[in-house]
Amino acid sequence: MAEKEKLTIVVFSGELDKALAAFILATTGASMGMEVTMFFTFWGLNIIKKNEGSIKSQGFKRKMFGLLNRGGSKRLKLSKFHMFGLGTWMMKKVMKESNYPSIDEFITMARQMGVRIIPCSTTCGMFGLTEDAFRSEVESLAGAAYFLNEARQSKVTLFI
Amino acid sequence: MAEKEKLTIVVFSGELDKALAAFILATTGASMGMEVTMFFTFWGLNIIKKNEGSIKSQGFKRKMFGLLNRGGSKRLKLSKFHMFGLGTWMMKKVMKESNYPSIDEFITMARQMGVRIIPCSTTCGMFGLTEDAFRSEVESLAGAAYFLNEARQSKVTLFI
Amino acid sequence: MAEKEKLTIVVFSGELDKALAAFILATTGASMGMEVTMFFTFWGLNIIKKNEGSIKSQGFKRKMFGLLNRGGSKRLKLSKFHMFGLGTWMMKKVMKESNYPSIDEFITMARQMGVRIIPCSTTCGMFGLTEDAFRSEVESLAGAAYFLNEARQSKVTLFI
Repeated sequence: MAEKEKLTIVVFSGELDKALAAFILATTGASMGMEVTMFFTFWGLNIIKKNEGSIKSQGFKRKMFGLLNRGGSKRLKLSKFHMFGLGTWMMKKVMKESNYPSIDEFITMARQMGVRIIPCSTTCGMFGLTEDAFRSEVESLAGAAYFLNEARQSKVTLFI
Repeated sequence: MAEKEKLTIVVFSGELDKALAAFILATTGASMGMEVTMFFTFWGLNIIKKNEGSIKSQGFKRKMFGLLNRGGSKRLKLSKFHMFGLGTWMMKKVMKESNYPSIDEFITMARQMGVRIIPCSTTCGMFGLTEDAFRSEVESLAGAAYFLNEARQSKVTLFI
Repeated sequence: MAEKEKLTIVVFSGELDKALAAFILATTGASMGMEVTMFFTFWGLNIIKKNEGSIKSQGFKRKMFGLLNRGGSKRLKLSKFHMFGLGTWMMKKVMKESNYPSIDEFITMARQMGVRIIPCSTTCGMFGLTEDAFRSEVESLAGAAYFLNEARQSKVTLFI
């Protein structure tokens, strides 16, 4: 049996539009029979944080930073035209009217299609995040070496 | 006869500097004998919209959004130092003094060199854009599956 | 003897967080035995500029631009939460407390591990920069064709 072709996506950015692009590509790849891994790092970690729950980072600076950088799929903003929430709200409306899944629904859908959702352990360490900061769809943390090893074997690797 | 090596570029960003990077790489690739496809999505669609013409999106929210997100190669801004137009103006002057093509000229040149310029049908649907929003150099819309299929066969794939 | 697998990274962005991601990946790749080339272009050039020294660009517009776009590894800002310096300061503190190298240390380390650090000649030309604008770890300038030729031969190519 032939091995599946791999698609590996680094999600560095935490904006609504980039998250959308990443999940459209990931789910399309999965539907084409590719083996898809999404590797979330830096601001991208916000996309897969729990929407509820409190900030539990250790230390004052990390707590302050965690408050600013709270995350959760429902708190993402557009990278352009956020306009104090108006642009982001309009975009979400347009997505709903076009019968587009929300990021929340995309995460669940991607997981059901076998997409692997992995937080970067290096940036988690830096931001003071542990596995229980993330949603249930998320797999174990893994580091940069793990990502590069996946990427080496992938037909397509994207940094979003 | 050997097949040409492929270069596939996703242009997600709509800023002048990123557009410039994308077209420098696309035209360089073409001049090296590569088969180049540029896939424009999200804000990147602005780069290849017509400079003239009115907003014809359906529905109030899309119209509002279309007005904000008007696009056209002559309306692009720098991602940094735009400074209410001053930085972008300076950059354009510097490009001209260095005898650099404008984005407008780059699009025409890329097309003449055989670079394929394709708008993403998925984001066009979301933003309410049809083919007549785009310049004449642009080919038919195509979706994420089309892009991934190109990328699978490419030596180099970039997400800009 | 088998040839080494190549990792090629375009560093387009000049922010602290993106620089960090690029150097984490470059040094990890090198430690895995990959042959790593980092190709700095546009704002990414700021990361590898000398921290000291004056602006020597030719012409008034380029001088003004050079002043704005001064660069040097110690002047980088976060792409999010810079907050007039507070967020960036907090991030640097957190990195230090986690015993993370600074960008300065990362550049030296990467070079010692054999990572090639190359400024893009095309954008250097546009910004009026010559080789002596850059740190000693930096190799000769090279253009887009050089980059694409490296990328063609690479297992993994990322645009950051």
